[in-house]
Amino acid sequence: MFTLYFAPQTCSLATHIALIEAAAPYRLARIDFASNEQRQAHYLAINPKARVPALATPDGILSETPAMLAFIAQRFPDARLAPLDDPFAFAQVQAFNSFICSTLHVAHAHRMRGYRWADDPDAIVAMQRKVPESVGACYDLIERHMLRGPWVMGESYTICDPYLFTVAQWLEDDGVDPARCRAVVDHRRRMAERPSVRQAIGEELA
Amino acid sequence: MFTLYFAPQTCSLATHIALIEAAAPYRLARIDFASNEQRQAHYLAINPKARVPALATPDGILSETPAMLAFIAQRFPDARLAPLDDPFAFAQVQAFNSFICSTLHVAHAHRMRGYRWADDPDAIVAMQRKVPESVGACYDLIERHMLRGPWVMGESYTICDPYLFTVAQWLEDDGVDPARCRAVVDHRRRMAERPSVRQAIGEELA
Repeated sequence: MFTLYFAPQTCSLATHIALIEAAAPYRLARIDFASNEQRQAHYLAINPKARVPALATPDGILSETPAMLAFIAQRFPDARLAPLDDPFAFAQVQAFNSFICSTLHVAHAHRMRGYRWADDPDAIVAMQRKVPESVGACYDLIERHMLRGPWVMGESYTICDPYLFTVAQWLEDDGVDPARCRAVVDHRRRMAERPSVRQAIGEELA
Repeated sequence: MFTLYFAPQTCSLATHIALIEAAAPYRLARIDFASNEQRQAHYLAINPKARVPALATPDGILSETPAMLAFIAQRFPDARLAPLDDPFAFAQVQAFNSFICSTLHVAHAHRMRGYRWADDPDAIVAMQRKVPESVGACYDLIERHMLRGPWVMGESYTICDPYLFTVAQWLEDDGVDPARCRAVVDHRRRMAERPSVRQAIGEELA
């Protein structure tokens, strides 16, 4: 049994979708950001980074979305969520997910979590102002160079797809015009129709 | 033959060390940041993200350090640079490298590349001011919860080690007191003694 520590409207949705698609046995543990539960001792014992998601497995606890997604793909190979037998193709999957976590998600985080990188309130406002540009530039790269269609890696659905879907939920709030990234919006629509995605969102909002 | 597009004093050093340790056939292609070569058309055709490193392989081009490091480990299994047969242990390696790229390297980047996230010069100064705290907090987490010793994953040397070594080169310039992270500094010293590391640094400075 796996336990996914999650919060709604965060990147934990990607791992949640992957668990469903892998037919992994899991339960959900919601962390309440409103009461700052992610900084309470009981959660710091699970994830000292004070962030979601974290995934408790029979072997121990994991964090970091790209690592958890690759783990789910490798641990449940029958689900065919990554090209496990081809190191180059697997590296392309990993490169996409690494770009999401280290560049796109980071650019997005400057809208609501600027306090991570500056204390001055004016600086935090200045960061927020640039989010449409910095996040938009990430979507430009994805549209022009990464998203092959219909899925991120082309004909094969992979662990890139729930991750892109998850962060693409935020693009309008990040100030990015959906007309700027039609392929991403199309991908988001296709993802939203998948039963696994509907189930994951339903469980998070329950 | 692999070609590593690199720049000195950047995170490309981690992949460079791993290539040497894997006994991979490679050549180096230096990208000149001083003349903004990373934004010139010939390099954008290699890596449209305008960043180093990028790794040209016989199968195509890769970017993103965690993806390249895992690729090298999988492509050259005899070098035993990652626990390839154990998905959980491999995920722990990946989680560490993902933390480096998405949290530690990002915190560090606010010292010299704040323009990525704000235009206002005062905001950029405010970001620089917080780097000792934000980078220092990353090293606190590494010391308390991640670095097992003597190597990151314990007795086994992995692709986590050249990556930690690479970013730990910058800790004094990031304003972090080395006394705050003695295990990281010890690890850095052990790494600096490895012939592969000496070779990589020598080649980059040549």
